[in-house]
Amino acid sequence: MFGRRRGNGSEGTVTGRYMIKAGIIGATGYAGGELARLLLQREDVEVVWYGSRSYVDKKYASIYQNMFRLVEADCLDDNMKELAKEADVIFTATPQGLCASLVDEEILSQTKIIDLSADFRIKDVSVYEKWYKLEHKAPQFIAEAVYGLPEINREQVKKARLVANPGCFPTCSFLAVYPLVKAGLIDTDTLIIDAKSGTSGAGRGTKVDSLFCEVNENIKAYGVASHRHTPEIEEQLSYAAGHPVTISFTPHLVPMNRGILVTAYASLAKEASEEEIRAAYAACYGEEYFVRVLEPGVVPQTRWVEGSNFADVNVVLDPRTKRVVMMGAIDNMVKGAAGQAIQNMNLMFGLPENAGLKQVPIFP
Amino acid sequence: MFGRRRGNGSEGTVTGRYMIKAGIIGATGYAGGELARLLLQREDVEVVWYGSRSYVDKKYASIYQNMFRLVEADCLDDNMKELAKEADVIFTATPQGLCASLVDEEILSQTKIIDLSADFRIKDVSVYEKWYKLEHKAPQFIAEAVYGLPEINREQVKKARLVANPGCFPTCSFLAVYPLVKAGLIDTDTLIIDAKSGTSGAGRGTKVDSLFCEVNENIKAYGVASHRHTPEIEEQLSYAAGHPVTISFTPHLVPMNRGILVTAYASLAKEASEEEIRAAYAACYGEEYFVRVLEPGVVPQTRWVEGSNFADVNVVLDPRTKRVVMMGAIDNMVKGAAGQAIQNMNLMFGLPENAGLKQVPIFP
Amino acid sequence: MFGRRRGNGSEGTVTGRYMIKAGIIGATGYAGGELARLLLQREDVEVVWYGSRSYVDKKYASIYQNMFRLVEADCLDDNMKELAKEADVIFTATPQGLCASLVDEEILSQTKIIDLSADFRIKDVSVYEKWYKLEHKAPQFIAEAVYGLPEINREQVKKARLVANPGCFPTCSFLAVYPLVKAGLIDTDTLIIDAKSGTSGAGRGTKVDSLFCEVNENIKAYGVASHRHTPEIEEQLSYAAGHPVTISFTPHLVPMNRGILVTAYASLAKEASEEEIRAAYAACYGEEYFVRVLEPGVVPQTRWVEGSNFADVNVVLDPRTKRVVMMGAIDNMVKGAAGQAIQNMNLMFGLPENAGLKQVPIFP
Amino acid sequence: MFGRRRGNGSEGTVTGRYMIKAGIIGATGYAGGELARLLLQREDVEVVWYGSRSYVDKKYASIYQNMFRLVEADCLDDNMKELAKEADVIFTATPQGLCASLVDEEILSQTKIIDLSADFRIKDVSVYEKWYKLEHKAPQFIAEAVYGLPEINREQVKKARLVANPGCFPTCSFLAVYPLVKAGLIDTDTLIIDAKSGTSGAGRGTKVDSLFCEVNENIKAYGVASHRHTPEIEEQLSYAAGHPVTISFTPHLVPMNRGILVTAYASLAKEASEEEIRAAYAACYGEEYFVRVLEPGVVPQTRWVEGSNFADVNVVLDPRTKRVVMMGAIDNMVKGAAGQAIQNMNLMFGLPENAGLKQVPIFP
Repeated sequence: MFGRRRGNGSEGTVTGRYMIKAGIIGATGYAGGELARLLLQREDVEVVWYGSRSYVDKKYASIYQNMFRLVEADCLDDNMKELAKEADVIFTATPQGLCASLVDEEILSQTKIIDLSADFRIKDVSVYEKWYKLEHKAPQFIAEAVYGLPEINREQVKKARLVANPGCFPTCSFLAVYPLVKAGLIDTDTLIIDAKSGTSGAGRGTKVDSLFCEVNENIKAYGVASHRHTPEIEEQLSYAAGHPVTISFTPHLVPMNRGILVTAYASLAKEASEEEIRAAYAACYGEEYFVRVLEPGVVPQTRWVEGSNFADVNVVLDPRTKRVVMMGAIDNMVKGAAGQAIQNMNLMFGLPENAGLKQVPIFP
Repeated sequence: MFGRRRGNGSEGTVTGRYMIKAGIIGATGYAGGELARLLLQREDVEVVWYGSRSYVDKKYASIYQNMFRLVEADCLDDNMKELAKEADVIFTATPQGLCASLVDEEILSQTKIIDLSADFRIKDVSVYEKWYKLEHKAPQFIAEAVYGLPEINREQVKKARLVANPGCFPTCSFLAVYPLVKAGLIDTDTLIIDAKSGTSGAGRGTKVDSLFCEVNENIKAYGVASHRHTPEIEEQLSYAAGHPVTISFTPHLVPMNRGILVTAYASLAKEASEEEIRAAYAACYGEEYFVRVLEPGVVPQTRWVEGSNFADVNVVLDPRTKRVVMMGAIDNMVKGAAGQAIQNMNLMFGLPENAGLKQVPIFP
Repeated sequence: MFGRRRGNGSEGTVTGRYMIKAGIIGATGYAGGELARLLLQREDVEVVWYGSRSYVDKKYASIYQNMFRLVEADCLDDNMKELAKEADVIFTATPQGLCASLVDEEILSQTKIIDLSADFRIKDVSVYEKWYKLEHKAPQFIAEAVYGLPEINREQVKKARLVANPGCFPTCSFLAVYPLVKAGLIDTDTLIIDAKSGTSGAGRGTKVDSLFCEVNENIKAYGVASHRHTPEIEEQLSYAAGHPVTISFTPHLVPMNRGILVTAYASLAKEASEEEIRAAYAACYGEEYFVRVLEPGVVPQTRWVEGSNFADVNVVLDPRTKRVVMMGAIDNMVKGAAGQAIQNMNLMFGLPENAGLKQVPIFP
Repeated sequence: MFGRRRGNGSEGTVTGRYMIKAGIIGATGYAGGELARLLLQREDVEVVWYGSRSYVDKKYASIYQNMFRLVEADCLDDNMKELAKEADVIFTATPQGLCASLVDEEILSQTKIIDLSADFRIKDVSVYEKWYKLEHKAPQFIAEAVYGLPEINREQVKKARLVANPGCFPTCSFLAVYPLVKAGLIDTDTLIIDAKSGTSGAGRGTKVDSLFCEVNENIKAYGVASHRHTPEIEEQLSYAAGHPVTISFTPHLVPMNRGILVTAYASLAKEASEEEIRAAYAACYGEEYFVRVLEPGVVPQTRWVEGSNFADVNVVLDPRTKRVVMMGAIDNMVKGAAGQAIQNMNLMFGLPENAGLKQVPIFP
């Protein structure tokens, strides 16, 4: 009944149509696995390289058994030079520093790169090096790299060779507060972002803090006043505001697999009605497929976006405190990582932006 | 960027191609929501009726907020007569007894019905009435109804007007043990099925036993020696064995949303090697898309099928006890309910059996 | 080996020592069950009344099977007049409004009352009536009632007839921020409290939003800018600050049974070093048994207080924003409800404050 | 308000009463932590040694922050010779093989040992070496060691120098089926034990399979037909039956922290009524404090024993299959490990068997 399945060969075309050849470096991490999951469901993309330094020569489906009989390929290494010759696009879902250490002009002249690490997100290399405690190995490409938040940088993404795919917290934080920052309706000096993340954000590395019994039945903050996504959020908000923005950002670890919820607080910069505030959201997101501004009084919840590329946002005006509470929910693995990377790929290849990304959120 | 979305109107055709018009009665239960989720992702099906007695006139997407902006329809009642005129197929995802109380010859002459309740699963009406403690309101259709396990009854399903979609436990139990029963390799008198289910199987009804704090951090058996899926499993196994089969069946409630795992035990009916046993599985499932016989030593796990229509099965021969341990894992909402219903729909409409059902399992 | 167990009779004394006779109204709610659990482990308290309107005449241990063979009593009604004659102390773990509707001078002249509802927490009856949308039935006792946060009102609690046991969020919020409010180190106009709660806080009532499948794998805010614990927190902080305090308070529902985590943000009112800030905490809590100020850099986590009456707090100074991040963790069922009620009882009866409350937090 | 806390010094006596000095080797594993939790709540025991090879010289409370301010001690190594001079009793909560490699006659002449590993549970050393794939380093003490299931071996435990504390699965499995095995009411050749365990049973070691995202929303079997607790269960059941017993045993991993549920199946050896069957349980457990035979129709659930040393058991007779379904629930960390070890300690020191073990199960 089924013979050869898609995505496990390297046929090049299917029914005469050209297929995008994609390579994944870091394919056995959670974000890499999510890239594979989403790309395998497409008729127009073929994954030609499952890169995983830790599992070279092992069957990919033996690591991610959900792919059993869907992927026949073995894991390969992270030879980006070789991969660049075979792939139209390379996704790097690897620890910070790796992409920057591998990329060069020759590679970029042969293929497109969508980097899911932080290497090219921050324009000021000294800020990167300070927060990430790493020397940047390819600063010459930082200026060229496009910050891949399509809702903001759609046109630049289309033309990019190198896309810096945003972090999960920055994506959710930015989308939740952007309209009011851009409209000048809130005092950015008062902006506080309290974020909550599922545990897949911590990755598949083995450490005591990620064990089931340590995470389950628990909630904690981490990286208080020091989390590395802070400068990324600040940089993007500064562009939106037109002046430097400094925020308080606190992530928390929640006992669930997927999902990020952001609750952000800021004082109004001037008197504004709920209608004016909602109008700012409508103005930014009215035409966006992936950003859903919920109806008044409805709170974003991570379960309603799980498995999808949607970002649900909403805002409440508190007349007692003259503050707004801005909320956003995404699936950190999709809109916060692999889905957004594919959204960027679509733009870079002239495809409909939501191609392969129309999954309805899965519930329960 | 997006205007009218699919699945929220009643346009009839899209790009000139005929669309199957589907109605869901019981659309706000978990299985009904899963039907909507899966059908909304298809280009060739249109949901024309979101039936929900409890939420008539409410926006469907206000009940299942994951559908926000994907479904504009309001909930309708369960007027099957009316619906039969509009729909090519009706899914009834309702409590036991409702479908039987609504169906009649006129309806069946106008539309196809896929009943996700137990009303038409059991051929002997007295067995149904005893285990379900209900009077059957339409026994005249029992003989005609086809038990919709495509891996067994594929050809009959294709021709059916009325499909009895199998229960979640019976689907997983049957697929796990069927090859050895059919091959006569196990002594069915010794067959014991110990099943474990996620909590979505209990439905969306409000009762103390389904509250988060009651289910979380707990495991328990329920319906011990009395669960209503028992006669359904026994009937199907009896057909496979060619003689009456009586089993012990014990379900357990597990603190997770989705998934059923079955662990079944039986003594060998005669000497058999691991190879012979595995050959029986290969013979039954070698051509099946949705049943994956795992490699030796690999156990089925619910996480590897979540969100998909796959059933993963495997078997271990224990030479110490001369028993086999047969295991199966499904997503109870997909292969155990909505996915299998759509698999049946595909067969009934002459479509590829896996149309709209090629979702890669979602992990983590 | 065991014959008669404690706590199931009404013997009055054990080994000649007087036992406190305690009654619980609302004994089958989660907080009521926790009171029973904690009181049963004491040699000096006897529970003489398990009140539960919903389960009158049912065996208490049939509702809470953990008590099987530990409690033989049946559930009684909520006849406080009758109970007042039998009990030295009455705990009311009931919905808002019930305690106020039952209490009168005669009762208070016979027994002590520790009310776990909000009825007597707020001194301004119009504030209570506005936020709780209830008419207060016994406003004449509001002035007399002591807000039972022993770390603040220890001496008044000792003399009280009527204690208003604090809410779970107010307890955790207050303890986390109190030292800096009292010391005048933070600008209370900038105070934002972002709280996260386990699901037991929602109680044992049956509603869709509390079902396992709705809570699991999800996080959401609720009661945004409108949660009824807001005025309670504000009132207590106003006393500490010496001037009216208005805050932003947002609770979130976390998929775990127990625990509250508070993350609070405020701008410094004046330059202050980390040492000065920590000194304020030490000054308030240095002698407190139940409040543990964690070491620098260690975040409070709910798992480390689970099952215990501890409140773990800590603070981080962020020099970039000149804000402090104040954190607190409690078990909402213990320090947030039943444990604190017993702490108050101990004070009211001249017992060591931590009698029966020295449970080591349970992990994992 | 509090000054010196108990359990953190080495004072020897408190208020003139002799205190048992206890040492824990493997104190930073989950079972070791549970021993500490339970022993710290006693007035008559002092923990004098927190042994942890991995964390020597680190503060114990920095590893288990629930102990903050309750334990001041640093971690020590596993020098059992030294410890034997200081301690009245040594608990070894360590991987298999360690206790056997450390113990000698000199040590046993100085102190009592309660070994929570499997080293001394199995009388036939060749069986141990085959299943555990280890050479036994101290076979000379196997005969002397007492299998520490007090409900069976109470008198021998009282006199023992060396107690082999039972495994978690064997404890629960044995207690669930023992009465019917002993009474000869079931055919032991048909005995099948299907067990489900919380994740703390896997220990605190870091491996991918124990990560939150791998365990959460999943259930799987493991060690199918090969789990090392199998021969331990078989040996104890053989003593009860009076003849060799071979069973099928399959453990499963459940997404919860604590708890083991056993569902066991066997055919009746002869006609027996439900009353006769229940009478066998009453005969065995009628006088036992820790084993609670539930009322007819009530299933054991792990939540009702969590945090306690209770084992809840029950049985259902299925007249259709002439099988019994025997069920048992324990907290794997308490009755399955640390609690049972303390129960043994109590017996060895002539204390009431339930001293320090009267915790009411914690719920929710």
